[in-house]
Amino acid sequence: MFELFIEEILAKKRGVQGKFQDKTYIRLTNSYGGWPEGSIVFKDLIIAGFPKIGRINSLESGLREQFSGSFWMEEKVDGYNVRIFHHQGQIYCATRGGFICPFSTDRIVDLLNVDIFIDHPNLVLCGEITGPGSPYIEGPTPLVSEDIKLFIFDIAKGSTMEFLPERQKHELISRYALPSVKNFGLFENQPEDLRQIKKILLSLHNEYREGVIFKEEPFGRRTKYVTANSDLNDIAVFSQKILDVSPNYFIDRIIRYVLFLTELGLIEENNWEEKLGKAFVCGIKEVLKKVQADGRSSRFFRCRFRELKNAEYFIEHLKHIPGHQEHVIIKKVYKENSYWVLEFEKTFPSTSDTLRNWLSGALRFD
Amino acid sequence: MFELFIEEILAKKRGVQGKFQDKTYIRLTNSYGGWPEGSIVFKDLIIAGFPKIGRINSLESGLREQFSGSFWMEEKVDGYNVRIFHHQGQIYCATRGGFICPFSTDRIVDLLNVDIFIDHPNLVLCGEITGPGSPYIEGPTPLVSEDIKLFIFDIAKGSTMEFLPERQKHELISRYALPSVKNFGLFENQPEDLRQIKKILLSLHNEYREGVIFKEEPFGRRTKYVTANSDLNDIAVFSQKILDVSPNYFIDRIIRYVLFLTELGLIEENNWEEKLGKAFVCGIKEVLKKVQADGRSSRFFRCRFRELKNAEYFIEHLKHIPGHQEHVIIKKVYKENSYWVLEFEKTFPSTSDTLRNWLSGALRFD
Repeated sequence: MFELFIEEILAKKRGVQGKFQDKTYIRLTNSYGGWPEGSIVFKDLIIAGFPKIGRINSLESGLREQFSGSFWMEEKVDGYNVRIFHHQGQIYCATRGGFICPFSTDRIVDLLNVDIFIDHPNLVLCGEITGPGSPYIEGPTPLVSEDIKLFIFDIAKGSTMEFLPERQKHELISRYALPSVKNFGLFENQPEDLRQIKKILLSLHNEYREGVIFKEEPFGRRTKYVTANSDLNDIAVFSQKILDVSPNYFIDRIIRYVLFLTELGLIEENNWEEKLGKAFVCGIKEVLKKVQADGRSSRFFRCRFRELKNAEYFIEHLKHIPGHQEHVIIKKVYKENSYWVLEFEKTFPSTSDTLRNWLSGALRFD
Repeated sequence: MFELFIEEILAKKRGVQGKFQDKTYIRLTNSYGGWPEGSIVFKDLIIAGFPKIGRINSLESGLREQFSGSFWMEEKVDGYNVRIFHHQGQIYCATRGGFICPFSTDRIVDLLNVDIFIDHPNLVLCGEITGPGSPYIEGPTPLVSEDIKLFIFDIAKGSTMEFLPERQKHELISRYALPSVKNFGLFENQPEDLRQIKKILLSLHNEYREGVIFKEEPFGRRTKYVTANSDLNDIAVFSQKILDVSPNYFIDRIIRYVLFLTELGLIEENNWEEKLGKAFVCGIKEVLKKVQADGRSSRFFRCRFRELKNAEYFIEHLKHIPGHQEHVIIKKVYKENSYWVLEFEKTFPSTSDTLRNWLSGALRFD
């Protein structure tokens, strides 16, 4: 059914072939033919890429600009995006980039009662996986203290890029007891609602949770807004690989941090300047120590698999993720209780090389 | 004498023509024929561009790597670099980029007893001009509280790129009472000297002074090293135009800040994380206020000229500085005592536009 389309994609270099177990597929590395980047094309099925959601950096004016009527407010979880779908009798999880993820696919039965696919084989569940046992996420997450959890936030209709209206999604979530993000209810652009929205954001901020997504009712526009403490957390985590990250990443977060604190009336409190400094400095102190001791900066990961062969597929998969080639060191694979544990290290080459060079006393011309 | 060379430079687009008063010249926009970028070519004279000085980010290992014998330690002043030279009976000042600067040239007789050029017409004095009355420098400087001052740090032999040995320079500075940077003496790579060097750096740091240049004795290699408080000051000043500056500018300074504090043993003190946060936040708060009030971020400048026509030349000159075209608004020119005062504003377009856009509630896809 999509054979010709697949040939076209490959000929025009808009996608590349992926493989998981005995399954081959095409993942779009660029949007093509109306399908967004990250879409997955099988011979008989297309799973659309997850659309980008625009961010507002200014809450009140942002909500006013984006929504003329009612909108839902729902928690945004800091993890990695998966699309969970059914194909020829098996459940798969795809990451944002369109890879079928051996880790998420292996563990999905731990995270979700997959009965929903018996009744609705054509739905695509979209969620966030997070936790210290994730192979992609660095740094702590306040919602999960060990291993990983899944938080569903959208359900798409089969191959289309169309999401179910919120109420219908809530119904399915409740009927199948799906693990989902927290929904804070329906709001409008009026003073009492804005006060309530800010109150919720303040409590998310205080718990170091990431932020929220606002979604038009019954469906349509959507936008994200994150807390200052989530920006801080990003800075603290990413400053450990400060020279392997686009410097704009930090500048954006610094400005957003100030905007959030200003808009939520926290700007006159007295320890948040120190917290910004600390976020940078703790990470950099740490990485300097590591570079001095080990000659490199790196991060340790430990994740559990149900099946050994999926751990092996995952090791292979890591080599294909942009920016991961050559920078992953596999440390150990061993059995613990009923799981296989994979331990690996990601190294940060620019941070390691540059800081080692600076510490050696080299001259720099800038 | 250099007519053919000038034709070559223009034909190969390695330089462009500049004009000041009745004088035309070529400034090299790229290095060419052995002359560095910023060199100034007249028909009968070449003034070499000022060479870049490499930075060490690590003091002890840096000094060990760069110097095998004795080296001088001299203050580095935070201002703009000028080369002061004599040509056909007049004294001119050139900026780093190779422009003859109408402001500096106008004011040079206020800054320097130019008698040295009567005895030595072929010397080139290299110095830093700084102060709140400078048209180029943003932010405060601890060394100058009003108007501007000059600090000579090098003397070059005529057209060559060769600097006089330090002792000979000191002799001329003293004989002609030239205003100069502070010299801290001659050191070697040995523990007592390093202790002394750190003590000096600590006091410069505490006074928010920029840092030092180390120079091989009698001449040769040179390198710069700056204080953490100078990095902080840069961050505070530049965060007011945060989106008009390369983000690497900030990342570099953050890392250098931590390295300096670590190496000088200040890292366990307890208010420098707050100071880093404040440096960013004060600037950003300020600029957000400005953008909300005036729709743009800008900085005000006020500088004094001896002659009105030089103020006019300077206005023309501003249009030719890369990045200044269209972003300078002339406010006023008026006479005050025996000086002409020029007031102008530099606007920061990316910071202004981006923040205005964010504050308006626009969506961003990042």
